[in-house]
Amino acid sequence: MSDLDTICVNTLRFLSVDQVEKAKSGHPGLPLGAAPMAYVLWDRFLRHNPANPDWANRDRFVLSAGHGSALLYSLLHLTGYDLPLAELQQFRQWGSRTPGHPEHRCAPGVEATTGPLGQGFAMGVGMAIAERELGARFNTTEARLVDHRTYAIVSDGDLMEGIASEAASLAGHLRLGNLIYLYDDNHISLEGPTSWAFTEDVGQRFESYGWQFLRVDNGNDLGAIDAAIRSAQADTARPSLISVRTHIGFGSPVADSAKAHGEPLGPENTRKTKEALGWPVEPPFLIPEDARAHFREALLRGQRWETEWNEVRNAFRHADPALAQAFDDQLAGKLPGGWDANLPAFRPTDGAVATRDASQRAIDALAARLPALLGGSADLAPSTRTSIGGAADFSEMDRSGRNFHFGVREHAMVAILNGMALHGGLIPYGGTFLTFSDYARGAIRLAALQNTHVVLVFTHDSIAMGEDGPTHQPIEHLASLRAIPNLTVIRPADANETAEAWRLAVTRQGPTALVLTRQKIPVLDPGQFPVAKGVARGGYVLSESDGGAAQVILIATGSEVSAALDAQKVLAGHQVRARVVSLPCWSLFEEQPDSYRRSVLPEDVPKVSIEAGSTFGWARYVGLDGESIGVDRFGASAPGPTVLRELGITSDHLVEVALRLVRPGPEGRP
Amino acid sequence: MSDLDTICVNTLRFLSVDQVEKAKSGHPGLPLGAAPMAYVLWDRFLRHNPANPDWANRDRFVLSAGHGSALLYSLLHLTGYDLPLAELQQFRQWGSRTPGHPEHRCAPGVEATTGPLGQGFAMGVGMAIAERELGARFNTTEARLVDHRTYAIVSDGDLMEGIASEAASLAGHLRLGNLIYLYDDNHISLEGPTSWAFTEDVGQRFESYGWQFLRVDNGNDLGAIDAAIRSAQADTARPSLISVRTHIGFGSPVADSAKAHGEPLGPENTRKTKEALGWPVEPPFLIPEDARAHFREALLRGQRWETEWNEVRNAFRHADPALAQAFDDQLAGKLPGGWDANLPAFRPTDGAVATRDASQRAIDALAARLPALLGGSADLAPSTRTSIGGAADFSEMDRSGRNFHFGVREHAMVAILNGMALHGGLIPYGGTFLTFSDYARGAIRLAALQNTHVVLVFTHDSIAMGEDGPTHQPIEHLASLRAIPNLTVIRPADANETAEAWRLAVTRQGPTALVLTRQKIPVLDPGQFPVAKGVARGGYVLSESDGGAAQVILIATGSEVSAALDAQKVLAGHQVRARVVSLPCWSLFEEQPDSYRRSVLPEDVPKVSIEAGSTFGWARYVGLDGESIGVDRFGASAPGPTVLRELGITSDHLVEVALRLVRPGPEGRP
Repeated sequence: MSDLDTICVNTLRFLSVDQVEKAKSGHPGLPLGAAPMAYVLWDRFLRHNPANPDWANRDRFVLSAGHGSALLYSLLHLTGYDLPLAELQQFRQWGSRTPGHPEHRCAPGVEATTGPLGQGFAMGVGMAIAERELGARFNTTEARLVDHRTYAIVSDGDLMEGIASEAASLAGHLRLGNLIYLYDDNHISLEGPTSWAFTEDVGQRFESYGWQFLRVDNGNDLGAIDAAIRSAQADTARPSLISVRTHIGFGSPVADSAKAHGEPLGPENTRKTKEALGWPVEPPFLIPEDARAHFREALLRGQRWETEWNEVRNAFRHADPALAQAFDDQLAGKLPGGWDANLPAFRPTDGAVATRDASQRAIDALAARLPALLGGSADLAPSTRTSIGGAADFSEMDRSGRNFHFGVREHAMVAILNGMALHGGLIPYGGTFLTFSDYARGAIRLAALQNTHVVLVFTHDSIAMGEDGPTHQPIEHLASLRAIPNLTVIRPADANETAEAWRLAVTRQGPTALVLTRQKIPVLDPGQFPVAKGVARGGYVLSESDGGAAQVILIATGSEVSAALDAQKVLAGHQVRARVVSLPCWSLFEEQPDSYRRSVLPEDVPKVSIEAGSTFGWARYVGLDGESIGVDRFGASAPGPTVLRELGITSDHLVEVALRLVRPGPEGRP
Repeated sequence: MSDLDTICVNTLRFLSVDQVEKAKSGHPGLPLGAAPMAYVLWDRFLRHNPANPDWANRDRFVLSAGHGSALLYSLLHLTGYDLPLAELQQFRQWGSRTPGHPEHRCAPGVEATTGPLGQGFAMGVGMAIAERELGARFNTTEARLVDHRTYAIVSDGDLMEGIASEAASLAGHLRLGNLIYLYDDNHISLEGPTSWAFTEDVGQRFESYGWQFLRVDNGNDLGAIDAAIRSAQADTARPSLISVRTHIGFGSPVADSAKAHGEPLGPENTRKTKEALGWPVEPPFLIPEDARAHFREALLRGQRWETEWNEVRNAFRHADPALAQAFDDQLAGKLPGGWDANLPAFRPTDGAVATRDASQRAIDALAARLPALLGGSADLAPSTRTSIGGAADFSEMDRSGRNFHFGVREHAMVAILNGMALHGGLIPYGGTFLTFSDYARGAIRLAALQNTHVVLVFTHDSIAMGEDGPTHQPIEHLASLRAIPNLTVIRPADANETAEAWRLAVTRQGPTALVLTRQKIPVLDPGQFPVAKGVARGGYVLSESDGGAAQVILIATGSEVSAALDAQKVLAGHQVRARVVSLPCWSLFEEQPDSYRRSVLPEDVPKVSIEAGSTFGWARYVGLDGESIGVDRFGASAPGPTVLRELGITSDHLVEVALRLVRPGPEGRP
């Protein structure tokens, strides 16, 4: 190691340690051990431009081991990103841009929100897929507009998580040679030595997935790290995992122990560590001038790379203006004119349509005019109806394919969608049964937290899916998803609401979950009802009561809206005036002005909700005086109509409850 | 294959196919392909007693590929379990004991509820751990009371799921030689050939985990299957995966295609399949007499095995009556006398106590008198406070250890807890941060669905955990967990409520989630308040309003109960009489009689809730006229008290809202 290299590595180390010390909170162990590999990667390989964090063809770097955030902030500050030292000095404080774990959009250069282990690993796979996909579509022999790598630093915790296994297996299958991960192999996890719980042969495992596995025995050996990254780059047919043997808390008295992981060293041990590594004890946040100058060369390199790339792009613009424009638009997230022109309209005379099938029609219609749209399913495409008709599969042989076979890997699927969206240029969707959204919760939450523009297609949305039984019948899932901040959950009432839901999913810059039926349900007559027009408002009056103000309001979502319309008719026969409200999206409804919400659901009219799922949360709309019809138990295996009937999800039941509300006493029990 | 073997295998095949045909729903492909391996395992190896499905020392068999349920029902019926043919003829019908996917307790001999892929794989690991644990405690040189194996049939879908990777890595680490899995390697998943998404080298992968990997090239070769199982049994130091090359839908016109997976063959193809395999087309549900007789020999073998075991147990009773009694009691789930005698009581004078620390005290107190209790954490024990003080680690070297290092594997952890509980004799617990309950949702749901007696310890239960930031701060998790049917979610208000919550978790025969603070919170004075006594009722009046009926009710859970008590005092200064209700467990409260619930939360008094999490669901208690204080956004990285203050989780905010409710208009805004 040259003197300057040593100084640079130690600058990274102590800038990180000092952040943690000042905050009296954080993780010093990873930066102390992993600073050399981070330095080599950022100094010699990472093609980025700190002056323009949005440069389309930058290499992506993900700190999957997000608890090492201080190291990332040190790298960003030193290489010239717009992250002043004052922000590092506000590490983990209210309002700072340096939160405890890296948050996308919070500081420039943070490509993904990480911390929950395994997520960064899987998002990186999504980024690498996006690179291959866009490269296949836009690169020409002369102009390689999309030609970059995705790097990550991953920890033993990342590798233990199932989501990483799922993503790694898929990355190997897809032969993503543009993916290079550095494994901070420090033999220590939070509880103690990894020998307590993690003794698998990591190299053998990754080779089984089809990865190249490389090993660096001394994590302080910059030359060895350099050589390993070169070997990784040289293998363009396989992703590479470089296992770098490091020492957590290197140089500190608590090195090689779990004590170094998650708490500040404290003043005494910080002093000892600085002394041990030949670093001035004071001042904190020291950046030697030669180190600063060296790190800032990243700005010059970045400018040069981006300039070169701009020249390529300009030549490309000249050669193929239409394609170049398409590239710019797609990367900018601009929807092409007429993108929704083919969205289907459904008529009742076409017969009943499962909303999963309406969704399939919408996907095909959108895909034809919206090249950014692509996706797949966790091995359920024939059931979730999520293949793009006529499109090829994304594979090693066809990188421009738009249909993805994620395998039975729900968690990795959603994280990969997040990574694709974070890369930019794509609007990815993924499908599974609503019940199995459980498997992907960790990644769904990160979609909401990062506001990634992804579409989740959750079909088989209730007990009506029938015979597969309670293991496959969602109950609590609608409530569980609605409770996630910033996730738009839409359960459309029919085929036309489904098309509208897709329109929203494309136009909203954030994650949307579509909750769709397996079974066929009626297409509501757009001539008779203002169906679908109100979806964007979350809820609307679908059918007004006849002959005067409503005496009761029937609120429903999805497949139960038709039951509510049936009940409305029956109630009319009982001389009860009922209004039917379709409420496909709670969060959009909550965003409406009070006056609108009150006009749809006036306070003084009794209300009944019906939804084939948990009633959890419905009191918000029906109040303590209203009633909610739902399923507050697990389902049962039987034909769908039987299960619905036995568990009381029927218009008869709705009529009975509505009558009881309107006419308390014996009369109300028909 | 002898003629009789062929007949038996085909009996399994067509009994399964006919179930699916009659139901017009189900999965014929797996039974057709996997019947030979199932036959060999059940006929030649599985030590069970169909006449007594509860025999303690039976081998466990898990059909992890639960969609092949018809095969399991065929096996159960034919070997003499109390599952009449009439039940097979009611496959997937309302009220039958043969639901679409196997459900524990629904039919005898179904050891676990499976279907969601990967869960059975991981539960089997839990069963194998339980066997080693109980064996280490109760076996003597003469008497091996606990000495059995755990078998499973797993599919490619199981192996793709991350939860299986987590469980497999841990099973290899723990060297569970009593675990033998048969992999139905049929090269087909739902979407199509596994070559589309799953091309990893499975054998190499499992060897990397420390498993023995064996291969049977022809899934119809009973001898080869037999030999492989023998080899698996012979390796007592490693779990074994036997990859059996099968053909989905074997014998049918749709063999080796995804068409065979999830839909009935239909009458025509059923006929062709029967003809191809030399089986009478009619009648359906045919059981040739010699096949019946042969399968029923399982009853004789089972009786003999259990009789032999009873003799061992009787001798053991003679030799060590106390240990034998302890064994019987523990297996029967009987709590020893005085099991809760050491449960701690906390006094305010002892200072503030984090409920995670109170839980640690409860764990230690219970563990000393309740040998069945054991558990661990997903690499967070020092944070979740879930180690049993003074107890050893469960490891290859010490099978009686009661502390488990699950690694960073939340999903497998909870599934393994399920498996341990299903085995019987143990009350397992597992800990992680509340946020990371997301990672384990799939297994938590199966805990609730199967009613396994497990305890989930979820700490760092709110934004108050502070600096780690939004990735680690739970928001929607309380709502998401409360929405799961049959899961008892308890968020205790202080150390004494925590001890009571643990008492409930031990006595209730089902899953309990304890939601606990990282930060210290006051111990409420049991002299002043009836604290903790009401936990069993889910909610109770903690502090009555002074000087007359309450004008407002403050409802809180967990750490916010103290804030409510503070607010009550401040409101008294404003001449407002407030009642404070502690509501640690919604589901227990809902189980109380109406009269009790109304006495705690009378309808005509305005209510405010405060909880440091999503307000989702709280309208159920505060109604449309009340208000809920909570956090309906993602959190932020900063010291806990700062985050609480900035997001309005304070007694000041509670006072302000309560005043507004009691005194509408300008006066209400202090």
